[in-house]
Amino acid sequence: MAHDHETRGYDDKKADYLKRLRRIEGQARGLQRMVEEDQYCIDILTQVSAMTKALQSVSLGLLDDHLSHCVVDAARAGGAESDAKIREASDAIARLVRS
Amino acid sequence: MAHDHETRGYDDKKADYLKRLRRIEGQARGLQRMVEEDQYCIDILTQVSAMTKALQSVSLGLLDDHLSHCVVDAARAGGAESDAKIREASDAIARLVRS
Amino acid sequence: MAHDHETRGYDDKKADYLKRLRRIEGQARGLQRMVEEDQYCIDILTQVSAMTKALQSVSLGLLDDHLSHCVVDAARAGGAESDAKIREASDAIARLVRS
Amino acid sequence: MAHDHETRGYDDKKADYLKRLRRIEGQARGLQRMVEEDQYCIDILTQVSAMTKALQSVSLGLLDDHLSHCVVDAARAGGAESDAKIREASDAIARLVRS
Repeated sequence: MAHDHETRGYDDKKADYLKRLRRIEGQARGLQRMVEEDQYCIDILTQVSAMTKALQSVSLGLLDDHLSHCVVDAARAGGAESDAKIREASDAIARLVRS
Repeated sequence: MAHDHETRGYDDKKADYLKRLRRIEGQARGLQRMVEEDQYCIDILTQVSAMTKALQSVSLGLLDDHLSHCVVDAARAGGAESDAKIREASDAIARLVRS
Repeated sequence: MAHDHETRGYDDKKADYLKRLRRIEGQARGLQRMVEEDQYCIDILTQVSAMTKALQSVSLGLLDDHLSHCVVDAARAGGAESDAKIREASDAIARLVRS
Repeated sequence: MAHDHETRGYDDKKADYLKRLRRIEGQARGLQRMVEEDQYCIDILTQVSAMTKALQSVSLGLLDDHLSHCVVDAARAGGAESDAKIREASDAIARLVRS
């Protein structure tokens, strides 16, 4: 399936996603420092939970953008493409819920 | 509560945790590249799910190490310290399950 | 918002959902029996996990039906109704991911 | 492994767990009614999320009781039994986090 540039659901929020992902990258580096400095397991776990929540929030944002743009467009176009997009979105939601 | 170096539950697996966290940091950078290159939302979501799973697996490892060392030691010492450690571990588990 | 009968996304799978929910109800009764009989905590927890998974699978099914029918129909109708349905679906997904 | 009656971690909270599980059973029946009455998918999903949260809260309670009693007792007894209990608890936590 070809996906050309104009259809990215997150297009107008690109800068925001990049900022959030850079912060998440920083959290991953912070965790390495904590382990290197032998910090307390529970304090590390607290940071891992914060990072997981930040990542989950990125997922939910991307999924919302995807439904609002790609899925809505496909639904309007109709036919097999519409069904395929819904299936793909449902699979992504299932992976998200189970991860 | 003072936590001296010798009691870190993850001590003998430090190198392994650092390796896993570096890989997770790399995943965060990979996600930024995907967003910059306008890659497809669902493909980005798939990578976010993989990264979340990797992070969750680090959590579960740290928690197991914590139970095996810190909690077991505290249980043997007994008293208020034992109760406090169990409470702290239960709270960490709850944050993990809810994140 | 009025929701008339014809638009239920899960309409053709009603019997299947009822069967799964009756099984889940049976699992809740089974758990009570386990507690009454003082069964081992870990065995009870295993059953709770199985029940949670069954419930999660019902959620994912309902969500897929909802996207395939209600959301697709709203997207085709367009306008404010379409936006409202996407928002509502995203909120439901967020509750699901966070629960 | 024999588990005799006196060692159930949830012993003194049995009545509370039974009450919560009966309420969860009621929620499962309520969901069947909602499906039978063709209620709106999103409203059903909201109820499923509430039920999942209630179930998760039972899990976290049971796990805390288990750590406080069975795991602490095993840690004090020491040896292979202690290791086996920690392993078993960690596995239960992993199932909980992943479900």
